Amino acid sequence: MRVAELSRRTGVPVPTIKFYLREGLLPPGVLTSPNQASYDEGHVRRLRLVRALLEVGRLPIATIREVLRDVDHKNLHGRLGRTLYPLAGVHDEPPTPELARAIADVDALITRWGWRVDPASPGRRRLAEVMLTFRELGVDYLMREIDRYAQAAEIIAESDLRGVATEHNPDDVVTGAVIGTVVGDALQAALRRLAHENASIDLFSETGAEPTADAPEP
Amino acid sequence: MRVAELSRRTGVPVPTIKFYLREGLLPPGVLTSPNQASYDEGHVRRLRLVRALLEVGRLPIATIREVLRDVDHKNLHGRLGRTLYPLAGVHDEPPTPELARAIADVDALITRWGWRVDPASPGRRRLAEVMLTFRELGVDYLMREIDRYAQAAEIIAESDLRGVATEHNPDDVVTGAVIGTVVGDALQAALRRLAHENASIDLFSETGAEPTADAPEP
Repeated sequence: MRVAELSRRTGVPVPTIKFYLREGLLPPGVLTSPNQASYDEGHVRRLRLVRALLEVGRLPIATIREVLRDVDHKNLHGRLGRTLYPLAGVHDEPPTPELARAIADVDALITRWGWRVDPASPGRRRLAEVMLTFRELGVDYLMREIDRYAQAAEIIAESDLRGVATEHNPDDVVTGAVIGTVVGDALQAALRRLAHENASIDLFSETGAEPTADAPEP
Repeated sequence: MRVAELSRRTGVPVPTIKFYLREGLLPPGVLTSPNQASYDEGHVRRLRLVRALLEVGRLPIATIREVLRDVDHKNLHGRLGRTLYPLAGVHDEPPTPELARAIADVDALITRWGWRVDPASPGRRRLAEVMLTFRELGVDYLMREIDRYAQAAEIIAESDLRGVATEHNPDDVVTGAVIGTVVGDALQAALRRLAHENASIDLFSETGAEPTADAPEP
């Protein structure tokens, strides 16, 4: 299909498609004449993925490029890790002493739960950074339930992997894992909001029964 | 304290602080002379909160302003709901037929779990939008485990609320809930990444034992 058709199919304007092509987020089409290229269903899928990473994941272009860069790896676990690691959004500076202490707390949690996590995994530092943010904001008490959160994370991760594993083509598994990770964060956040609303009624509502009475205007 | 001291305490540059003041994200200080204002510990806390919402939550300024706007409400549940609703980031356009069907799926989930959710809650539409994104990306299969995700969301929400409820001052409860919601999303995402890595070894690693062999360069 031509670029106009690709635009129509995905709802992405032609200039935006050309920008993604220049930025390497979308592989080039097959040239059919010096000024015209042809695109296929792979481009449609890739374009939808880029939009999801941008709009739902709010990821920077550079991170998306890194995630999409095809990596050839010995086994799928390694390839998955390598593809997903940039999603952690971790910086490279050496950790401050406070951060180093928080990383040690994370390692203790990992040991407590018997999780097999690569020492190079950016997830350790990312979690430590978030724990440090709670501390700096003076809401350490929100971390008291960290082991319950770890339990919930196990339930979610096992379900995620069962979902992704239903795809047998390794490329689809990797794509599913990227979408499942980024759009999955939004899914978990949305579910958590709904569950909050339910849990909050028992705890904080003076009437305990009529949340509708306090409903904001729609 | 003067603005220079506020900047030193929080690491936020003076021009940025002035920008937040103009944007209404930070309440004005007390004028001590026509050109000088004095700030207190409340400003330090508020500034850290704004930075967390911007950097960790990646929220737009307008949403932060809406979240921070103090709302006077009959009871804490209502006030919490009203404060947190803008965090859902939902738009106002009437739902498309596809979105309306997804909202119906969400309502069925809410009924299945007996959650008490306000009909006006933006969380319903937000979850439906995410489910629709999965569908458009051709990864519906990732939604098969939605009831396990709901179970995990219940565990997380109950723990969150227990954490927030340890604060007895209503203002601190509201602040804790905002931080817990936004920074909490980052916490849950980071934990989920670590749990993924662990769960992925059993499922995808060819060796099943040595993820280090596939570790990316640190």
